Amino acid sequence: MTHFDLAIIGTGSGNSLVTPDFDDKRVAVIEEGIFGGTCLNVGCIPTKMFVYAADVADQVRGAERYGVDAHVDGVRWRDIRDRVFGRIDPIAAGGKDYRVNGPNTTAYLGHARFVGPKALEVDVDGRTEHVTADQIVIATGAHPVIPDVIAESGVAFHTSDTIMRIDELPASMVIVGGGFIAAEFAHVFSALGVKVKIVTRGPGLLRAEDDEISAAFTQIAAQQWEVHLDAVVTGAEATGSGVAVQLHGADPVEGELLLVATGRQPNTARLGLESAGVERHSDGRVQVDAHGRTSVDGVWSLGDASSDYQLKHVANHEARVVAHNLAHPDDLHSFDHRFVPAAVFTHPQIASVGLTEKQARAAGHDVTVKVQKFGDTAYGWAMEDTTSIFKVVADRRSRQLLGASVMGPEASMLIQPVVQALSFGLSAPEMARGQYWIHPALTEVIENALLGLDFED
Amino acid sequence: MTHFDLAIIGTGSGNSLVTPDFDDKRVAVIEEGIFGGTCLNVGCIPTKMFVYAADVADQVRGAERYGVDAHVDGVRWRDIRDRVFGRIDPIAAGGKDYRVNGPNTTAYLGHARFVGPKALEVDVDGRTEHVTADQIVIATGAHPVIPDVIAESGVAFHTSDTIMRIDELPASMVIVGGGFIAAEFAHVFSALGVKVKIVTRGPGLLRAEDDEISAAFTQIAAQQWEVHLDAVVTGAEATGSGVAVQLHGADPVEGELLLVATGRQPNTARLGLESAGVERHSDGRVQVDAHGRTSVDGVWSLGDASSDYQLKHVANHEARVVAHNLAHPDDLHSFDHRFVPAAVFTHPQIASVGLTEKQARAAGHDVTVKVQKFGDTAYGWAMEDTTSIFKVVADRRSRQLLGASVMGPEASMLIQPVVQALSFGLSAPEMARGQYWIHPALTEVIENALLGLDFED
Repeated sequence: MTHFDLAIIGTGSGNSLVTPDFDDKRVAVIEEGIFGGTCLNVGCIPTKMFVYAADVADQVRGAERYGVDAHVDGVRWRDIRDRVFGRIDPIAAGGKDYRVNGPNTTAYLGHARFVGPKALEVDVDGRTEHVTADQIVIATGAHPVIPDVIAESGVAFHTSDTIMRIDELPASMVIVGGGFIAAEFAHVFSALGVKVKIVTRGPGLLRAEDDEISAAFTQIAAQQWEVHLDAVVTGAEATGSGVAVQLHGADPVEGELLLVATGRQPNTARLGLESAGVERHSDGRVQVDAHGRTSVDGVWSLGDASSDYQLKHVANHEARVVAHNLAHPDDLHSFDHRFVPAAVFTHPQIASVGLTEKQARAAGHDVTVKVQKFGDTAYGWAMEDTTSIFKVVADRRSRQLLGASVMGPEASMLIQPVVQALSFGLSAPEMARGQYWIHPALTEVIENALLGLDFED
Repeated sequence: MTHFDLAIIGTGSGNSLVTPDFDDKRVAVIEEGIFGGTCLNVGCIPTKMFVYAADVADQVRGAERYGVDAHVDGVRWRDIRDRVFGRIDPIAAGGKDYRVNGPNTTAYLGHARFVGPKALEVDVDGRTEHVTADQIVIATGAHPVIPDVIAESGVAFHTSDTIMRIDELPASMVIVGGGFIAAEFAHVFSALGVKVKIVTRGPGLLRAEDDEISAAFTQIAAQQWEVHLDAVVTGAEATGSGVAVQLHGADPVEGELLLVATGRQPNTARLGLESAGVERHSDGRVQVDAHGRTSVDGVWSLGDASSDYQLKHVANHEARVVAHNLAHPDDLHSFDHRFVPAAVFTHPQIASVGLTEKQARAAGHDVTVKVQKFGDTAYGWAMEDTTSIFKVVADRRSRQLLGASVMGPEASMLIQPVVQALSFGLSAPEMARGQYWIHPALTEVIENALLGLDFED
């Protein structure tokens, strides 16, 4: 039995909890997988590196319309993969090394479960280590969900955990799922030359986005990929060349490789939370208050294990708040989840923040909306853009901004001024006219969207 | 003699002065050149369209490092040119048509000069039209300056007015000048396959930028173009294949084509301003107060003819202010020139706002600076970026932001959150931590730059 001031389960955002406040404390860091968590190893960071290569390939193929004749001679998949993981894997290894040999941290490399409110057992190399701590943080993240019909079919499949490390690009790929993970990998593999077939049970893709964005994206997706909507998967079977996904009332969809991207569940089922009295939501997330406190005094949680948002920037924010609260029990900080932006690095790129139009109406706002086409701005002319849109939602009476959604190149950058305006309470007219917008930069789509809103006189 | 309520000389930003406030008034619109002014016809808009094609060509050539083998098969210059002007020329023609046949405007297509404080003569098709007006706006823009040694040499040369309409790409081009126009065209023509040679009298390029940005850009420029610094042009002569620009104490620089990009002067010399009593600065700009009023009551000026800034977004802003003031003499608005951003769409792209480090020090601030490398952020890893930087300048004591400069992809977009923060008075720490930054989007360079500032405790 070893006692610590602080025990952290999970080394994604949890790893950043070891602030200088703990320089003189004893900290246990527990990790059963790869150091660094989802984002670094199998999530946002490597995906964006693949996406960037995909974007470049798409750019080459689209060069002709700008008067530049170009073509892709070939894609070196292994070089891309090895470049990505050649950069990432050493970071994960370095992170592990730092905790294993760190000055005031003890690393436990194994699975942890609660055996009491402040007591853990960790399976390390076949031994069981007993760890107690004054404070414990559950930062265990999440993992891909596999639908039973696929899990039980016995076919080989990939998830976001494994797909980026394959040795060869398949000729074709069936992606089950219609959310952001499905959409990002569809873009990556399609742009790199794989025939992509998406199978989703919903009537459109990216259904978490504003309806108009989801509909517009689904339409574009259907032009670049084979998209099966309203498709209920009933099973899967191996074929000579890969896998066939069986659908209710429709022909099976075949591909050389199957990627399952049907969502992620918090890693909380095997933590023995019931032994500690830590309550969970029905969806498995640990229940926390605005300060990150669970139902058990001294036990905290953050990130995908407990958050409303499966987003790294939210997990990092929550980690900063919890790190502060661990060391300052009399001055608790709160999570700020008011204006959380998100981007989907698919093609075309998508980003959003605040309320969708539907959410704004449901919340009782007298809503005004403007959908600004990139193609109606000077930079949009330069891009020869015909599909991109910047949609802004505001309250007609108060003139307050409520949200924005973007579909088009650099959406993840274009959303930031709106994030900033929402966070600091700018009205739409103030934001539009209280600052300069470089002419003709792409940011003029924001300006024009704001100016297109219709307010009460 | 025809009398008007308002006479506007120049149809760039001046054209937007005809607001609904003038629906029942008589307005004269006077234009001696092409309708729409510099930006639309020979400035920011067409240049960005060429730049975008150039960016695409560069992207293709750089694809290899992302594992995507690609190459440029060819550049169809005439197609690019005709696409650009096929879009722009009809807009200029439409603008002219709208004013010629507009409901309450009378167009005078010719050169105007003052013959009294409120009286103009306009040369139209060999006739002299007499125009008087209660209010007159000088919005005549600017034109390229040609150094005497080149003008007097008799060699053929291009300026930004003509270079975009050439019929064939030359094999090589000498660009005289080291400012933003030179830098943008160097990028365009280099990327499209022309060997570019820049000749500038200064010790670096883009000397109006922060010293660090100018130095870094000059270094990159020298790798992609032939750059002659500290070069004093003493003359030019035609050669068998083009032109040779002669330098003091150095070999001449030869190219098939010569582009002169040595700055722009206001179009005020031939306006008869002395007949009206309109005062000018020593550099030729019309003197205006913060409301756009000249030294003569009822005569106004805006844009390149009078402004401290040769930027379309500033001219548009000034036009909005003057449009208001023309109709509301008892409620004058003022120009807001506090935080004017600018972008140079060269390669790499550059943008800036607020004070440079040197300006901040000269203004007496206790300065803190952070130069954030794109390559030290996750998205920069995806871009394999090794050269791009985001520099932010703040006051160490007040924590107020003072300015920022960016060199790298999408600089013109990345500067906007700083423009917004400066315009609405956010401190650096507030801006960094008072909002979410999407991980891992390129905007994280801004967040990290802000977090890297060193403030007094």
